Amino acid sequence: MTYAADTVVIVGLGLIGGSLASALRRSGFSRRFIGCGHREPSLRRGVELGIIDEFTLDLDAAVERADILVICTPTLTAAQMLGQILPRLAERGDGPVITDVASVKGSLRDAAVAATGGVPPRLVLGHPIAGSERSGVDAADVNLFVNHRVILTPVETNDPAAVELVRAMWASTGAEVLQMSVERHDAVLAATSHLPHLLAYALVDALASSDASEDIFRCAAGGFRDFTRIASSDPTMWRDIALANRSALLDAIDLFSEQMSRLRTAVEAGNADALMATFTRAKRARDEFAALLAGRTDSKSP
Amino acid sequence: MTYAADTVVIVGLGLIGGSLASALRRSGFSRRFIGCGHREPSLRRGVELGIIDEFTLDLDAAVERADILVICTPTLTAAQMLGQILPRLAERGDGPVITDVASVKGSLRDAAVAATGGVPPRLVLGHPIAGSERSGVDAADVNLFVNHRVILTPVETNDPAAVELVRAMWASTGAEVLQMSVERHDAVLAATSHLPHLLAYALVDALASSDASEDIFRCAAGGFRDFTRIASSDPTMWRDIALANRSALLDAIDLFSEQMSRLRTAVEAGNADALMATFTRAKRARDEFAALLAGRTDSKSP
Repeated sequence: MTYAADTVVIVGLGLIGGSLASALRRSGFSRRFIGCGHREPSLRRGVELGIIDEFTLDLDAAVERADILVICTPTLTAAQMLGQILPRLAERGDGPVITDVASVKGSLRDAAVAATGGVPPRLVLGHPIAGSERSGVDAADVNLFVNHRVILTPVETNDPAAVELVRAMWASTGAEVLQMSVERHDAVLAATSHLPHLLAYALVDALASSDASEDIFRCAAGGFRDFTRIASSDPTMWRDIALANRSALLDAIDLFSEQMSRLRTAVEAGNADALMATFTRAKRARDEFAALLAGRTDSKSP
Repeated sequence: MTYAADTVVIVGLGLIGGSLASALRRSGFSRRFIGCGHREPSLRRGVELGIIDEFTLDLDAAVERADILVICTPTLTAAQMLGQILPRLAERGDGPVITDVASVKGSLRDAAVAATGGVPPRLVLGHPIAGSERSGVDAADVNLFVNHRVILTPVETNDPAAVELVRAMWASTGAEVLQMSVERHDAVLAATSHLPHLLAYALVDALASSDASEDIFRCAAGGFRDFTRIASSDPTMWRDIALANRSALLDAIDLFSEQMSRLRTAVEAGNADALMATFTRAKRARDEFAALLAGRTDSKSP
């Protein structure tokens, strides 16, 4: 059997990394899967589950053995790792294709530029739009990426063969692979994910601090539960994302705040037509989106 | 068999009115159910389904026969009906106990005051916090109110016996009946329902009008779907609610906007501690709320 890449190293073996290794084993994309990280119990568990074949706690050793190295850690850690890995590889002029799964791409591009003066040819940043309310390697799901989108953000300095290998890797998991610029990715994610998280956190915290909070939470029902579900997300992860995607998130906040300000004016003025126009346009867009999503699969969060 | 109220008239036989009649028939609260409205097909369907025993298109005739009259129309129509019914009853000094199910209570109280100079002793305003994505009498569900909250907003001029009758009516459906002031009700509903609808409409409309809207909706997933579900709600209904609850809704918008403004400042300044504090408080409150809701039942929207 020929493999597209002989050895895949997964750095950070949690939900995403574990699911990716499982899917790549099933698809026959690679022969060997090596886990790397600093949490030995997770790595041992990955071997027990048959998700990885072996593991190492030594990042440099892992890099040596990888044909593809996938950094599956949170955003800030991923940036630190690039700072550790890239300078050594740049000196040597070779090394594995490196990619990642972080929610923000601009901050990782900047980390690469800071480490080596540019984006190395074989560093192809990417982001699978998939997740689960569960986390950790025990939650790994071979079907996590099926019918989900993966966004790659290649740059001009990238080696086309490296981009193609990362594209093929994700395609073999069942995902639909899109490409867009770093800026477009970060703007799109700010709009669809990072801003909604901020809105949900802001709403729940504002209500929790209100005089009426007891009555508020006692009387809230299913609609409020759905709307605020994402406010139960991990605060550390979302703090890091908000900081890493600062510029695009500020733009998204401002776009939203202008629209809210217009709605507030319409409510205050009793402007029924303005409210009706906004609500009608929004309902149409949201219904179209729901139909689009329903046409794919049982797309779970985030 | 003794009935708490011999004849219940449901004005506006849709999801809520049909579900209420079904639940009251099951509980044995009343002997006879009469539907009233201007849409004869819905009323005929209600008879076919065994939800009501008979119907009339004549509101005044319905009032004559009612022991309890429940106005189950949307907010603005309910206010108009009070304007039609109350002056005649005030002249006579008797008539049925009247209640309603509208999402805003201040506007109905004001309509009563405008019609008769005060809230009549036997007008007891109320609001069941229950609903469904379906509508119409065919969606009537005998269990719709089980383990849901119903808020009554009695005032000083109310006859205690009338309040007790309305309380007992809702309790017999399996609902938990709470009482609070008109102002508190409208503030709580603005916070938990009316503001979230406005936020969802504003977000979706802002994104739909963005240059990146195609990529945005293509890359959004389950978290965005849940967060924006309520933007698929009926625009006319929500326009009317936003106008009817103007004052409390403006207060809720302002409370939220202040919190968003603080978060924006924290993002801009890279203030990790401020973001972490807000996200952590919000997650705790939201997790507590989710546990509270899970402890009740399968509480569906809104």
